[in-house]
Amino acid sequence: MLTPFLSLAAVAVAVYGLLTARKLFAQVSSVHVDNEKIADIGRQIQDGAMAFLRAEYRVLVVFGVVVAALLGWSTGSWQTPLAFVLGALFSVAAGFFGMRSATSANTRTAMAASREGAGAALLIAYNGGAVMGLSVGGLGLLGIAIMYAIWGHDPATVQYISGFGMGASSIALFARVGGGIYTKAADVGADLVGKIEAGIPEDDPRNPGVIADNVGDNVGDVAGMGADIFESFVGSLIASIVLGATVTATNAGQMFPGGEITADDRVTLMAIPLLLALIGFGASMVGVFSMNRLKNSEPAAALRNTTLIGAALFWVVSGIVLWFFGMPLEPLRAVVVGSLVGIAIGLATEYYTSADEVLGLKTKAVARIAEASKTGPATNAITGLAVGMESVFIPLILIAVGIYFSNDAAGLYGIALAAMGMLATVGVTMTVDAYGPVADNAGGISEMGGLGEETRKITDSLDSIGNTTAAIGKGFAIGSAALTALALFAAYSSEVNRLLVAKGGVDGGFRLELTEPSVVIGLLVGGSLPFLVAAMTMTSVGKAAGKMVDEIRRQFREIPGLLEGSPDAKPDSARCVEISTAAALREMILPGVVAVSAPVIVGVGLGPESLGGLLAGATATGVLMALFMATAGGAWDNAKKAIEQGKIEGEQKGSDAHSAAVIGDTVGDPFKDTSGPSLNILIKLMSIVALVIVPIIV
Amino acid sequence: MLTPFLSLAAVAVAVYGLLTARKLFAQVSSVHVDNEKIADIGRQIQDGAMAFLRAEYRVLVVFGVVVAALLGWSTGSWQTPLAFVLGALFSVAAGFFGMRSATSANTRTAMAASREGAGAALLIAYNGGAVMGLSVGGLGLLGIAIMYAIWGHDPATVQYISGFGMGASSIALFARVGGGIYTKAADVGADLVGKIEAGIPEDDPRNPGVIADNVGDNVGDVAGMGADIFESFVGSLIASIVLGATVTATNAGQMFPGGEITADDRVTLMAIPLLLALIGFGASMVGVFSMNRLKNSEPAAALRNTTLIGAALFWVVSGIVLWFFGMPLEPLRAVVVGSLVGIAIGLATEYYTSADEVLGLKTKAVARIAEASKTGPATNAITGLAVGMESVFIPLILIAVGIYFSNDAAGLYGIALAAMGMLATVGVTMTVDAYGPVADNAGGISEMGGLGEETRKITDSLDSIGNTTAAIGKGFAIGSAALTALALFAAYSSEVNRLLVAKGGVDGGFRLELTEPSVVIGLLVGGSLPFLVAAMTMTSVGKAAGKMVDEIRRQFREIPGLLEGSPDAKPDSARCVEISTAAALREMILPGVVAVSAPVIVGVGLGPESLGGLLAGATATGVLMALFMATAGGAWDNAKKAIEQGKIEGEQKGSDAHSAAVIGDTVGDPFKDTSGPSLNILIKLMSIVALVIVPIIV
Repeated sequence: MLTPFLSLAAVAVAVYGLLTARKLFAQVSSVHVDNEKIADIGRQIQDGAMAFLRAEYRVLVVFGVVVAALLGWSTGSWQTPLAFVLGALFSVAAGFFGMRSATSANTRTAMAASREGAGAALLIAYNGGAVMGLSVGGLGLLGIAIMYAIWGHDPATVQYISGFGMGASSIALFARVGGGIYTKAADVGADLVGKIEAGIPEDDPRNPGVIADNVGDNVGDVAGMGADIFESFVGSLIASIVLGATVTATNAGQMFPGGEITADDRVTLMAIPLLLALIGFGASMVGVFSMNRLKNSEPAAALRNTTLIGAALFWVVSGIVLWFFGMPLEPLRAVVVGSLVGIAIGLATEYYTSADEVLGLKTKAVARIAEASKTGPATNAITGLAVGMESVFIPLILIAVGIYFSNDAAGLYGIALAAMGMLATVGVTMTVDAYGPVADNAGGISEMGGLGEETRKITDSLDSIGNTTAAIGKGFAIGSAALTALALFAAYSSEVNRLLVAKGGVDGGFRLELTEPSVVIGLLVGGSLPFLVAAMTMTSVGKAAGKMVDEIRRQFREIPGLLEGSPDAKPDSARCVEISTAAALREMILPGVVAVSAPVIVGVGLGPESLGGLLAGATATGVLMALFMATAGGAWDNAKKAIEQGKIEGEQKGSDAHSAAVIGDTVGDPFKDTSGPSLNILIKLMSIVALVIVPIIV
Repeated sequence: MLTPFLSLAAVAVAVYGLLTARKLFAQVSSVHVDNEKIADIGRQIQDGAMAFLRAEYRVLVVFGVVVAALLGWSTGSWQTPLAFVLGALFSVAAGFFGMRSATSANTRTAMAASREGAGAALLIAYNGGAVMGLSVGGLGLLGIAIMYAIWGHDPATVQYISGFGMGASSIALFARVGGGIYTKAADVGADLVGKIEAGIPEDDPRNPGVIADNVGDNVGDVAGMGADIFESFVGSLIASIVLGATVTATNAGQMFPGGEITADDRVTLMAIPLLLALIGFGASMVGVFSMNRLKNSEPAAALRNTTLIGAALFWVVSGIVLWFFGMPLEPLRAVVVGSLVGIAIGLATEYYTSADEVLGLKTKAVARIAEASKTGPATNAITGLAVGMESVFIPLILIAVGIYFSNDAAGLYGIALAAMGMLATVGVTMTVDAYGPVADNAGGISEMGGLGEETRKITDSLDSIGNTTAAIGKGFAIGSAALTALALFAAYSSEVNRLLVAKGGVDGGFRLELTEPSVVIGLLVGGSLPFLVAAMTMTSVGKAAGKMVDEIRRQFREIPGLLEGSPDAKPDSARCVEISTAAALREMILPGVVAVSAPVIVGVGLGPESLGGLLAGATATGVLMALFMATAGGAWDNAKKAIEQGKIEGEQKGSDAHSAAVIGDTVGDPFKDTSGPSLNILIKLMSIVALVIVPIIV
């Protein structure tokens, strides 16, 4: 049969991808940094970032050992804890590689921009991101291929794989929350004292918080996002495989003659997700390599085209392969629906967060916030919050449309595949995502290192071009999170049913009916958890930023000549890095514990019906709150930039309206970079914990 | 049998209550206002408020006629449209009586405070509120008694009564949204120009927006809240009666011998809600009358004791009556559970919004916001938002506990009764709620009319004492909204099932399963609607406040001597009243249309499963967003007051931290007084629309 061959092929492609990532890393690192000041700044950023990562991993080892032991004890099996540990380790490795590469590429991008110009700088920043993209895609594919080879072709063992997802999700939540708190504590603290109180520009080397701010960009946007996407990718794959093993709805049956799913068909359904992931990763690599040829075309188009090449190749090859092996084509329909919905969500979000036209449509939201800034910070804040709340509606309709059509294609299995469709070419989409912070960092380093106006212009332009592509990446992240959480939720429900039947219950006896008080209780409690976690993370950012403010104020006060820019006065950047690190590590614990323990407490205490309700409630409000917070934050940010760029009549940098817009932007910082992204992971982590603990609660 | 007697008794008690309200109104109005300036201000406020109400009712007549015609056409019946029109008319009448009385009592309270002192002023303000309380309770009881007499003892006709609820809910949504926009446009506009730009105090007669602001207090807090509570009261009654007619769960059966509900038992179950409402209204009247004896005791205790007398009497008499007639006692258990949960929610909310101790517990949230104000408006806003999000958790747990125990007592019917339990003594709780804005207005009038320091002190103390009692009233409003929406949702589901069975379907064939994609689609779309409506109403406040700012700035600029306080310079207050009125009427339409049309579109377009999901999603996020917004707004307000009252070390009125806190308070204004309260009604209106259109979509 196909399956052993499939595992081998997937392992081979994954390993090839990882070797490629290593080659790209060597290539990036070989660029010589001959400017001592730049090298020094780069070293400080890299040291800070790596120190944070190591400190974080030390905490996570404790967490991982405790959870693995509890899992082993409660399920009485070794398989789930093993998968859990592997999932966590693979996620950690992906984050580590990506961070190592990004903190190398940032100085090299700056150097290339100053020495060789835009094309060379683009290639280095892109390849720096590609190390992350290929690591995430390759490790995800490798991990799932191994899981699949051991447990993946038998419906009775397939759920062990969910342990791998739980490991990846746990790391992702900690990385996102910790990274998000780190980056925003540094950012808000540095801005509040530097830009607002002392009146010195962004990224000014006199500001002791600037290094921490740049470390934060890597910690939050590279390592945090990498763990996030890694978790999404393997989560959607696992949900697809598990549902392939269990799905029973008529819409899934239509894929096979007579509407019946035979045991052989199940094996096929369980194989298709891995097959698609394999093709997707191969297509991604082609997309990544194409940058070598595209680097001298218009940069924004080059970035976009690498992802389009990856996606197009993925669709075409998948169609051919499915047809060649005589497999049903409905899964491809679901995958394409997923991709289209993801793109549409990205554009809808872009419409609310961009100051420029989107697809020729004039956007209004950012202009509304900028106009409202003219009557002060209160109206700026009210308008930004209103824009964020308004922006959830169209994406939710789009997600509903995606559910409708992917379910129409292949039932609940189709919904899982739609999520996977957005993530199959993760190798190239993640590359573009990771490119952003590298370019951003390169800009900061050019400024701090005094590389001059020309270089800064190049890095600024490189920084800005990834925006629309990144917006579509965000659309994929949000859409896939919603669909993956729903698919995991469906997998949870059918797994409970399967176990109940195995214990002599009636098939279909387990129902999650909205008129059952136990389900409603779960729904309401689950719905409140995203609010609670959002509150926790925002509070943490506030507390940590407060400490950062005190420290930066202290240094300006106590270090003679620092604020005046005397050459002997050196800011104590390391102290700021320590403050952010300590705060992030301390504050990430509680949200993580809530996320892992809430499903256990409700499942064990109130039963599987309430736990099902909890997942549905958390998914619904989690998606809504994540969208609300991400969009509001993005729109506030761009409203401020619109004023700075002179796009708002009668206002410019330094005007009262600009001050009001800066305040709104600061409110939006934890919204878009800490709380919002954490919620996407929260809902998947809770779903996968529920799936893992099914044997305990039934 | 009991039923004809019950209707008659209810009508008699309701009419007696309404006559009492008239007597109290006459008593309040007979107080002579011998200060020409006060009389003039009072006249302006009353004229503005009544003009708004008339203009609003003109719009609502059009809406009512259109909806009634559509209802008649689509259901092919005259009963539902008739009930709808009656529900709307009764709600309008309650709002009108209450507003008329509150705008009379405000000047009289001020006069009594200046002439006779605190005791007399308290009695007038209280009786002014009591006209509203008794009107709401009496008209609600009267309306439902009439409905019950015609359709209420036959399960086949009982659902016509839901038309009455739809009428009341529609008016409530418009009144809340329109009133909320009116009051906040005036408040924010008057504050932004008066307090922040011109630096003149609150309620200064030079400010052209002050009259509109005081009109707004009546329009929003009296008429809006009255329609809101009227709707809650009749909504919970209707849900109880309809569920009494249809409920089948085992927990409901346990009330009767053998666990079987006979046809006779159904009649009993349908009668109990009206019986309890009748006893509750009687008990409320005793509570209201007791103020005559309590007025010279400590005012805060007096207010609290009137409600406690009402509640205690209600419980005791209900127990005796149910026992005397040989009815099951489980409904009383559900009612008591509801009351206790309502009180607990009120205290939990109070914990997050009060600067002082709650039940001996030191509160932290307000102090946190005040402390965060020291680092500026951005950290104030972040902390306020975090507090609001955090505050939803405990109330949701309490609601879950309430569902658990009331379901345990009497199934879904018990959940509806728990909601009713919070509202049965609405006559006296609404009195305390309406007392608040009367006392608030009296303070503003004393200030504008120059009644002096002593009088202002009395009115200020009267204004502040109602807070804890009002917080418990808010807890009742939120808790009962959640439970009523759930009960209406359950009623919707069992009504769909009943009609399907009548058409030859299988009993129990209609299921709202969370694993069905159609239900999930509804859940997600429904979940996004409260965000959309919150965004609409906040945007409306922002737009309307902007117009108000422009007008007040224009008057200060163009009317010579106005700002300097020259005696010849008169502000054009009427123009500001017009602006608020026009904006409120224009902006209330769209949210109302969304609320009424969304269930129809989803129900007709996607079927009853998706509509069920829509209601569940909207209820969950609606309750969460309402709590979030109300608490954040209240906490911001009190953080500002805490600074003003010198409770925050090193800060006082006029400091930078105070300015930051004023900004937070302004953001919170539409949160707590427009968007938040609108969402409570939104979820019930959508549920009741769904219930009404069941015959169309099945």
